[in-house]
Amino acid sequence: MQALLAKPELSLEDVPHPTVKEDEVLLKIRLAGICNTDLEITKGYMGFTGILGHEFVAEVIDGDDTLIGRRVVGEINVACGDCDFCKRGIPSHCKNRTTVGIDRHDGSFAEYMSLVTRNLHIVPDSVSDEQAVFTEPLAAACEILEQINISENDRVIVIGAGKLGMLCAQVIKHTNADLSVIIRHQKQADHLANWGIRAVKRQDLQDSQATIVVDCTGNEDGFADAIDLVQPRGTIVLKSTYEGTPKANLTRIAVDEITLIGSRCGPFDTALDYLAKGLVEVESMIEATYPLDDAIKAMEKATERGMLKVLLKP
Amino acid sequence: MQALLAKPELSLEDVPHPTVKEDEVLLKIRLAGICNTDLEITKGYMGFTGILGHEFVAEVIDGDDTLIGRRVVGEINVACGDCDFCKRGIPSHCKNRTTVGIDRHDGSFAEYMSLVTRNLHIVPDSVSDEQAVFTEPLAAACEILEQINISENDRVIVIGAGKLGMLCAQVIKHTNADLSVIIRHQKQADHLANWGIRAVKRQDLQDSQATIVVDCTGNEDGFADAIDLVQPRGTIVLKSTYEGTPKANLTRIAVDEITLIGSRCGPFDTALDYLAKGLVEVESMIEATYPLDDAIKAMEKATERGMLKVLLKP
Repeated sequence: MQALLAKPELSLEDVPHPTVKEDEVLLKIRLAGICNTDLEITKGYMGFTGILGHEFVAEVIDGDDTLIGRRVVGEINVACGDCDFCKRGIPSHCKNRTTVGIDRHDGSFAEYMSLVTRNLHIVPDSVSDEQAVFTEPLAAACEILEQINISENDRVIVIGAGKLGMLCAQVIKHTNADLSVIIRHQKQADHLANWGIRAVKRQDLQDSQATIVVDCTGNEDGFADAIDLVQPRGTIVLKSTYEGTPKANLTRIAVDEITLIGSRCGPFDTALDYLAKGLVEVESMIEATYPLDDAIKAMEKATERGMLKVLLKP
Repeated sequence: MQALLAKPELSLEDVPHPTVKEDEVLLKIRLAGICNTDLEITKGYMGFTGILGHEFVAEVIDGDDTLIGRRVVGEINVACGDCDFCKRGIPSHCKNRTTVGIDRHDGSFAEYMSLVTRNLHIVPDSVSDEQAVFTEPLAAACEILEQINISENDRVIVIGAGKLGMLCAQVIKHTNADLSVIIRHQKQADHLANWGIRAVKRQDLQDSQATIVVDCTGNEDGFADAIDLVQPRGTIVLKSTYEGTPKANLTRIAVDEITLIGSRCGPFDTALDYLAKGLVEVESMIEATYPLDDAIKAMEKATERGMLKVLLKP
């Protein structure tokens, strides 16, 4: 079958069909999404080599008989079930986990993929493939509300109006908090306007005004803005991995008693529920869809400045 | 009167007696403590110029008649009472605050000092001057328990077994958590042994084992150790200001969903209560006491590696 591999440089290859273990199903990928993490992996992040991709919607074609023919999405952390984190019910932090398309587990930029059955979530009929392919990053956005309480009394600023930032903003909007998203160009403002979300420029914001800042930038300057924008005793949520090891004003965190919360993968059920209920609009974020043949071109497209979601259709 | 000024370099001078405003009292300093922040200020931290010192026990000699002759300690943040933080009952984060011996308010390394009456706490008779002078840093240690819950199920590691780290460790010991303090030399181990607290070396600790790490090091390497030692979903408490702007592995915070909590000044009443009940032993941490005449020598003594508390007696 055809697949896009990271070695870590990109390579479109013909590879053997995936093997399917007893607790796994064979998936036929219907649609896959390119994430910034995929771009980072091609620069060496995680030292991953193998088939890229962790965002997907697929059809079950072999394995569990009760699932064959169903459309599914899948959680990306494949947990051991035995370590203390698994036993505490936190498989996303399993000490022995592999991660689809990121860490010792082949990914979704291929015609077929195998995955443990317990990681699957059935996609409701009312949710299209184009919506369902956003389940994984939308779940990551939903994770914020699993970790902190956001109310109408909060002033929230999202920094980094890219793919993930826009999903975070849409989720946070439903808390009725006073929400602003920092933008750098008009296209971002147009998207946010469609969802009724306020777009602002950094230079128009005073420091120390937010009770909560969500940093989706993944860079040192974005984090410095987060520190400047949050008020004393406020909270900064870190949603991205960062390039290298950034400098961070830890003194300000101590003096202003700021809370910093790292936030990664989230609840798929909640994300699917948001999509099924139309609480989050994702299709306008799709900027291009490429056949798997053109996967390298698709990855190049995804690196363009300000690019939102690029999809692969095997 | 005699006073030790930071300009920011140290200068022992004869200065006018402090003026006393209507809402203030005049204090005769009985004993003052040297803190690492004082040493930082002499290197330019906070851009402070004026009389140094924020740890003290004093006698009220003028102002509020009901207080004259009483021994007191004093909170160091002088709040405006009007800003939104003051109105929310968080004067320690007042936007217009001055801070005793740190920010636009003369400090305690002098014969006399003025301070707003509302910042005073009366020292119980059972608490000696040598104990009471630790109230301010002990309150900072107590702040941790105002911010997070620590139980007997927690594995806590304190990094940086200096003056503040030892107070934090003594306070945390009473939670019955499994507590270890990282030491660098035998003197630290001896102190901790007196209090029944486990001393460990960094190289003997495995990574990702603590549910809570308290970083009292104030440097980049200490913070890197904190990140390595805390387990996923764990908490790091930052108790120190940091030299410069350290590099910080924000990616690990995001991926492991670590919570970072900045922690500064704390409750004086709680600290005095710990001292009065003998829950914390501080006198063995006093390594030298100098007359104010020798204040510069005292500051030099305080910079010696591994030095614990150095006091000034005007």
